[in-house]
Amino acid sequence: MSETKRTTIVLFSADYDKVMAAYIIANGAAAYDHEVTIFHTFWGLNALRKEELIPVKKGFLEKIFGKMMPRGADKMSISQMNFAGMGPKMMKHVIKKHNAMTLPQLIDMAEEQEIKLVACTMTMDLLGLQQEELMDGIEYAGVAAYLGDAQDGNVNLFI
Amino acid sequence: MSETKRTTIVLFSADYDKVMAAYIIANGAAAYDHEVTIFHTFWGLNALRKEELIPVKKGFLEKIFGKMMPRGADKMSISQMNFAGMGPKMMKHVIKKHNAMTLPQLIDMAEEQEIKLVACTMTMDLLGLQQEELMDGIEYAGVAAYLGDAQDGNVNLFI
Amino acid sequence: MSETKRTTIVLFSADYDKVMAAYIIANGAAAYDHEVTIFHTFWGLNALRKEELIPVKKGFLEKIFGKMMPRGADKMSISQMNFAGMGPKMMKHVIKKHNAMTLPQLIDMAEEQEIKLVACTMTMDLLGLQQEELMDGIEYAGVAAYLGDAQDGNVNLFI
Repeated sequence: MSETKRTTIVLFSADYDKVMAAYIIANGAAAYDHEVTIFHTFWGLNALRKEELIPVKKGFLEKIFGKMMPRGADKMSISQMNFAGMGPKMMKHVIKKHNAMTLPQLIDMAEEQEIKLVACTMTMDLLGLQQEELMDGIEYAGVAAYLGDAQDGNVNLFI
Repeated sequence: MSETKRTTIVLFSADYDKVMAAYIIANGAAAYDHEVTIFHTFWGLNALRKEELIPVKKGFLEKIFGKMMPRGADKMSISQMNFAGMGPKMMKHVIKKHNAMTLPQLIDMAEEQEIKLVACTMTMDLLGLQQEELMDGIEYAGVAAYLGDAQDGNVNLFI
Repeated sequence: MSETKRTTIVLFSADYDKVMAAYIIANGAAAYDHEVTIFHTFWGLNALRKEELIPVKKGFLEKIFGKMMPRGADKMSISQMNFAGMGPKMMKHVIKKHNAMTLPQLIDMAEEQEIKLVACTMTMDLLGLQQEELMDGIEYAGVAAYLGDAQDGNVNLFI
């Protein structure tokens, strides 16, 4: 078939290792000429957060969510053996040792490969995340847009 | 194509936020005229539990499982920042504030949209859950029935 | 259609119950004559580990990862109600009581059904796992090989 293949990932998690798996698969699929969408929802939105603190007005609960959630991929915990923060350091150490890509590098690569990075507007509302706090150049959409992409997808994953 | 699209979700988790994501995607797909199946297995079976305590005879381990697992969607924890139960309260608060749907409302909507809600009989056995304890009007099946739906699915997710 | 159906699973997790769900779906799909691939990555690699301690040279962090991770399916925790190890015992007890298959039995069955068991070489490097430590007869590949299988898959899941 000459038809373009398509990969979509719903990124729900905010664990360094899971987000890494998502971006490795996404970048691999893009290298294979798939059209790739990563739909960031719930905690997965944090992969798109800017590292610096952006001053925006928020309600009380939204402030708490904002403080407790990691600001960007580099601040995330890992899903297993987190050891109060030692785990992510160990993980980053072995990533560098084996010349693998760190998560921020994988996200940069996704942007270069023109992977469609989407922030779920409905869960942004719930968690009180605002557009100023997220990376530039991403798209904003809801579940309908995700399904529009996924229903023609060859590989659809929920991570 | 005039062919009906199909979405299937294996719902393995019993976290309020993950189950919410599952039901939002399922309801969205049904609104798009997909035939939708949610196959509840392992902890995900708890989304189908009735809130009230149903007196049924059980073995010792099955009683423990029954007591430790949430009776229905409204009793679930969240996967991140649960804070000994504060997290779900915060989540429900922001859901109401933003006029989003709570998980019990999403499940009601799924029933109205005739989404096929299936309980995995094999894991019901393992966890000691009996039909009397689960919602009325659902279906009971095994992995073969799930695969029968999924192999023609456009969007198949494991949540 | 006379075309062979295909199922692929990315197995990321090392929870007894999640790995069990993965292998139940995989074995079911193989029984339905699907071509099935399980791509073991990150913690999911531990499902392929031999039970005995294999003496191999490792760096310091890789030694720690090796010690902290379960040696094989039988040693895994469960994702909910682990109760410091009681949970897996309870789970195995009800599995036997209901004549269901334990995880090691499910893995044996997968081998008998010629399910393609793949270890992700890139994450083997990260976690310091070596071929000598993993089961015989499995394949070694990267994300490109996974995508090659998945893009023609009918059922693709991330577990």
